[in-house]
Amino acid sequence: MDDYRTLREAAWAANQELNRRSVILYTFGNVSAADRDRGVFAIKPSGVPYDDLRPADMVVVDFEGQVVEGRMRPSSDTPTHAVLYREFPGIGGVGHTHSTYAVAWAQAGRPIPILGTTHADLLPDAVPCTAVMTEAEAAGDYEAATGALIVACFPERSWERVPMVLVARHGPFAWGRTAEEAVQHCVMLEELARTAWLTVALDPGIGSLEPWLLRKHFERKHGPDAYYGQEQGGHGA
Amino acid sequence: MDDYRTLREAAWAANQELNRRSVILYTFGNVSAADRDRGVFAIKPSGVPYDDLRPADMVVVDFEGQVVEGRMRPSSDTPTHAVLYREFPGIGGVGHTHSTYAVAWAQAGRPIPILGTTHADLLPDAVPCTAVMTEAEAAGDYEAATGALIVACFPERSWERVPMVLVARHGPFAWGRTAEEAVQHCVMLEELARTAWLTVALDPGIGSLEPWLLRKHFERKHGPDAYYGQEQGGHGA
Amino acid sequence: MDDYRTLREAAWAANQELNRRSVILYTFGNVSAADRDRGVFAIKPSGVPYDDLRPADMVVVDFEGQVVEGRMRPSSDTPTHAVLYREFPGIGGVGHTHSTYAVAWAQAGRPIPILGTTHADLLPDAVPCTAVMTEAEAAGDYEAATGALIVACFPERSWERVPMVLVARHGPFAWGRTAEEAVQHCVMLEELARTAWLTVALDPGIGSLEPWLLRKHFERKHGPDAYYGQEQGGHGA
Amino acid sequence: MDDYRTLREAAWAANQELNRRSVILYTFGNVSAADRDRGVFAIKPSGVPYDDLRPADMVVVDFEGQVVEGRMRPSSDTPTHAVLYREFPGIGGVGHTHSTYAVAWAQAGRPIPILGTTHADLLPDAVPCTAVMTEAEAAGDYEAATGALIVACFPERSWERVPMVLVARHGPFAWGRTAEEAVQHCVMLEELARTAWLTVALDPGIGSLEPWLLRKHFERKHGPDAYYGQEQGGHGA
Repeated sequence: MDDYRTLREAAWAANQELNRRSVILYTFGNVSAADRDRGVFAIKPSGVPYDDLRPADMVVVDFEGQVVEGRMRPSSDTPTHAVLYREFPGIGGVGHTHSTYAVAWAQAGRPIPILGTTHADLLPDAVPCTAVMTEAEAAGDYEAATGALIVACFPERSWERVPMVLVARHGPFAWGRTAEEAVQHCVMLEELARTAWLTVALDPGIGSLEPWLLRKHFERKHGPDAYYGQEQGGHGA
Repeated sequence: MDDYRTLREAAWAANQELNRRSVILYTFGNVSAADRDRGVFAIKPSGVPYDDLRPADMVVVDFEGQVVEGRMRPSSDTPTHAVLYREFPGIGGVGHTHSTYAVAWAQAGRPIPILGTTHADLLPDAVPCTAVMTEAEAAGDYEAATGALIVACFPERSWERVPMVLVARHGPFAWGRTAEEAVQHCVMLEELARTAWLTVALDPGIGSLEPWLLRKHFERKHGPDAYYGQEQGGHGA
Repeated sequence: MDDYRTLREAAWAANQELNRRSVILYTFGNVSAADRDRGVFAIKPSGVPYDDLRPADMVVVDFEGQVVEGRMRPSSDTPTHAVLYREFPGIGGVGHTHSTYAVAWAQAGRPIPILGTTHADLLPDAVPCTAVMTEAEAAGDYEAATGALIVACFPERSWERVPMVLVARHGPFAWGRTAEEAVQHCVMLEELARTAWLTVALDPGIGSLEPWLLRKHFERKHGPDAYYGQEQGGHGA
Repeated sequence: MDDYRTLREAAWAANQELNRRSVILYTFGNVSAADRDRGVFAIKPSGVPYDDLRPADMVVVDFEGQVVEGRMRPSSDTPTHAVLYREFPGIGGVGHTHSTYAVAWAQAGRPIPILGTTHADLLPDAVPCTAVMTEAEAAGDYEAATGALIVACFPERSWERVPMVLVARHGPFAWGRTAEEAVQHCVMLEELARTAWLTVALDPGIGSLEPWLLRKHFERKHGPDAYYGQEQGGHGA
């Protein structure tokens, strides 16, 4: 009996969508889909080209990153995903890409400033950038240390409102209630990175979006009286 | 009897074209098509992915933004469209996107300068950028206030010659005699924003296009003796 | 009997190729194909979308720009093409686009410097930029004046070696022995404009390519002892 | 009997993949595939459009660049490929493109700095840029001199760890254990060039990636204890 078929299919579909959205080059990126009731997630196997990937190739691991089912080696970023599932209760998907503009901000070690309503429609603050990992941290469990650097950026459940981050010198991670939403956040993050890059080139000293515009846009999509999308209080993707 | 089928189909087709032209990411954008005789317009429902959209999903509203026909909630930008239809007599379509370069100029709060004949072929002046909305304005009817900021940029029927605008911190709106033309103006606006961005990077202190070139190009397409396109006085889209 | 069918088909095919190569937006651009023996050229009709264009729509005009055959109005740039056919003996095709990076250089009024061997493989000098047209020139026959500004950039048959130009504030024109080659030159010009733009951003004070590299690359493709391509003295497009 | 069919097919497939990956414009680029046992490599013929290319068109030459089999003239860059096969034992494929961002760095004469883990996943150092060829060098065997400039950048078998280079004023070359891998390195090089360009624009004074991150990322893919990909010590492409 195959216990994790639905979960592996969800992870597979999300990985395919990530690839289709042009935020992936070769094997550089991965998405996982979690089943919180069973305490596992399915993730892309390491180094397999997207075109060759089948649902059955997805590897099921627990929240400590131990393989539960699967013939292949899971993504080398698996321990980072595991940290996020443990520390961010409620998230059901995590994505990681090397999308071009997000990587540029991450390499520069700079958060993506909130400069307009496209950004505020999605999240109410800058996309944070982690600290640069120290030599001591990198000498230990590197991928878990990456997860810890991410977690340190999100005090007070702020990971619910800001479902994305830049890992300094590395690139973006994003999450969501599902793997599908995590992919949407990866794609939107790249667009926010691109428009912010272009805006800063026009005006290097630009400040943040006025707080009343920020609040208004975030709340019309995500607040208790949200009126965007077709659901009440909805979150139209 | 379905009274608004033709109108909904025109709005649907214009929304599909907007998506095809790569100025839309996910659900970020919308077009409406007006029937001035009946005082209504059809607009995209809020937050519905373009690929799932059918003509029957378009929502018909009056020029006060009240729903006349349709099962779904109209775009959250509907009150902005309504203001434009009320204040700009003669326009038959309005489009709104978050296209990348136009958003960059809008986020920087800068008009798109007129730097060449590609721009002058389409419109005889810079693409204006609205004022930044104040906290008091944002506290009221936000989308109507957005419309009012737009209208304030267009004294003396100048909205006929300059069928597009940047809303500061937000992004572009464009309009036209039809929804199809509004989409063309959205697409052209993005290209003007892109070439202006690249030109200003080469020469940050560049001035506006010489006035005689501006006049010549605008008038060969739009003046009384226009000789561009196949119509007399034509406006070859 | 249809005298110009082959010529119209060549012009039509070149216009389609221009569109396919993504250097055209809507109707902004045109290519013509000349038959020098008969003293005519076929050109795109004005303002007709590329997707709707059929070979029979191409308009045949003489080298003074007078219509010889065709039901539609020829491109508004026809007089510019006519000047080039009259002044540059031997050319058999002319193309004009509003491609993005070439327009940026043209709007800035700057020649595209020769910075590397990609450029030198194609032409042995900067892509010149015309003077800005004066008010007096613009008041007369504007499109013919555009042609005259172009011709003034090419003393001593240099238009044979440098088959392309930027018209200041406007955009690129290119030509070749055939309409097909004119299109290739339009496409290559855009790529030269793009790489030069990116290079100048990295090093704003960069000088021209060393003259020995320039000569070597141009001559291995175009000199009397050319060894690029499959023809002797060949010009592998 | 056709001795080199497999080799020609490998070279042809790699050239087609290079074209599909959008790092080629017209005929500007080439890949070769070597058979070290027989001391030959198959390379693209000079100046033939990719769409017209058949496996039988590939030209087989020896490591001195002399044609062994084939009706067409080999790529004008053949002597450069030959130098690399002679001087870099173990490589089985060489690729050369004029990809946009890599050409920009090459034209500026600047190495591509190592700024993040995307780069470190692939190679443990900057992508070097050769010296500018002197007039004396260009006067001799130009393509062989290009090869010598490349070789001078790679002391102590460093070409094994850094399988790519920029030739100053010209563009990128990359190599690998196979022609397929050489193509992947060409494509990745363009992406590294692009993200580095964008990063340097955000922070012109940025330094290199911290050495512990560099080592960690390179070794997790390429070190003796590599854990990326599905092979032990694997090199997941």
